[in-house]
Amino acid sequence: MNERKIPMQLIGLFDSPYVRRVAVSMRLQGFGFEHVALSVFRNQDEMRKLNPLVKVPMLVLDNGEKLIESSFILDYLDDIASAGKRLVPASGEERRRVLQQCAIALIGTEKAVQILYDTKLRPAEKTHAPWVERCKQQMHDAFGLMETQPASPVLSGAPITQADITSTVALAFAKYVHPAEFPAGCYPRLEQLSAFCEGLPAFIETPME
Amino acid sequence: MNERKIPMQLIGLFDSPYVRRVAVSMRLQGFGFEHVALSVFRNQDEMRKLNPLVKVPMLVLDNGEKLIESSFILDYLDDIASAGKRLVPASGEERRRVLQQCAIALIGTEKAVQILYDTKLRPAEKTHAPWVERCKQQMHDAFGLMETQPASPVLSGAPITQADITSTVALAFAKYVHPAEFPAGCYPRLEQLSAFCEGLPAFIETPME
Repeated sequence: MNERKIPMQLIGLFDSPYVRRVAVSMRLQGFGFEHVALSVFRNQDEMRKLNPLVKVPMLVLDNGEKLIESSFILDYLDDIASAGKRLVPASGEERRRVLQQCAIALIGTEKAVQILYDTKLRPAEKTHAPWVERCKQQMHDAFGLMETQPASPVLSGAPITQADITSTVALAFAKYVHPAEFPAGCYPRLEQLSAFCEGLPAFIETPME
Repeated sequence: MNERKIPMQLIGLFDSPYVRRVAVSMRLQGFGFEHVALSVFRNQDEMRKLNPLVKVPMLVLDNGEKLIESSFILDYLDDIASAGKRLVPASGEERRRVLQQCAIALIGTEKAVQILYDTKLRPAEKTHAPWVERCKQQMHDAFGLMETQPASPVLSGAPITQADITSTVALAFAKYVHPAEFPAGCYPRLEQLSAFCEGLPAFIETPME
């Protein structure tokens, strides 16, 4: 039997960037998991039975413990990962740098989600244009800041980090939900990182759609 | 001179629960900071000059580096804190437990913010009642889950943790912005924790209003 002793369950669809970054990370770290592909909107009742807070991702451990919030789930996975498999360095300047790049990518992601929620999850007449505009500016401010960061060491052969994963997942999601805001070539350095990462098996096996 | 060598700047108002939990943590850990009390709404232009992403809290280090996202700022502070001053254990089961309690409190906080944004930051006719109801349910689900956790060890004399701080800040904020949702006695165990923590100097010196 090659099955892992610890069949963790990952609840949530990969069209959530928060679920996708956890799934990609687990594949890169070699953690097996069962994917429970329920939607927080379309499968709300079924979801609520497993996941009373209706928040994804949720990671169910083999002891039944239910972990929420992707950054804390990733922190746990790094804590139990085998040597050399951490995606965020354990401490110091490198940790701060990786987490701050994640922070910026997560703001880009959050703003993309907020725009989507305001424009798609309510009747058109309930959309508030000034709020959407504010979020669009903050979204592009975040992607613009990601674009000005030094090129990721992963492009020169260094191990992949959570900053690479979260930035790549953020761009894929934002392009998918707001294609008009992200014409090809608008964030060229980030697109280069993204093309590299999306070519890795862990990303290919975790398609967003 | 008693001034610290590292005059960190904390940007944002304490009416943001995310800013307040960082400020309380810094006081408990003995980090001096200069408080830059600007609002992301009322002082938007001034804020943008210091803080291009207009996200609070932002912690400006003495080298000019600007850190964002309260959970990552707190992670950094724990990383540089003196021995015994960590607010989240460094690893293992205790770390997971504290971070998961934070995660639940942060969902309660996030939902309280989303309700506020939908009902106050846009014209009344743009409020979408089904969305507000969904958020209210999730908010109470989170507070209800916090209420069912074992009583915090801090009430029996153990050192305070980030779970205590974040839960207390979450309740204070939610009660302040949605008083009708939180009549006295509705979450008695959480209120007991809150009364204890709000009586500590670090909380008293960081008033929400």
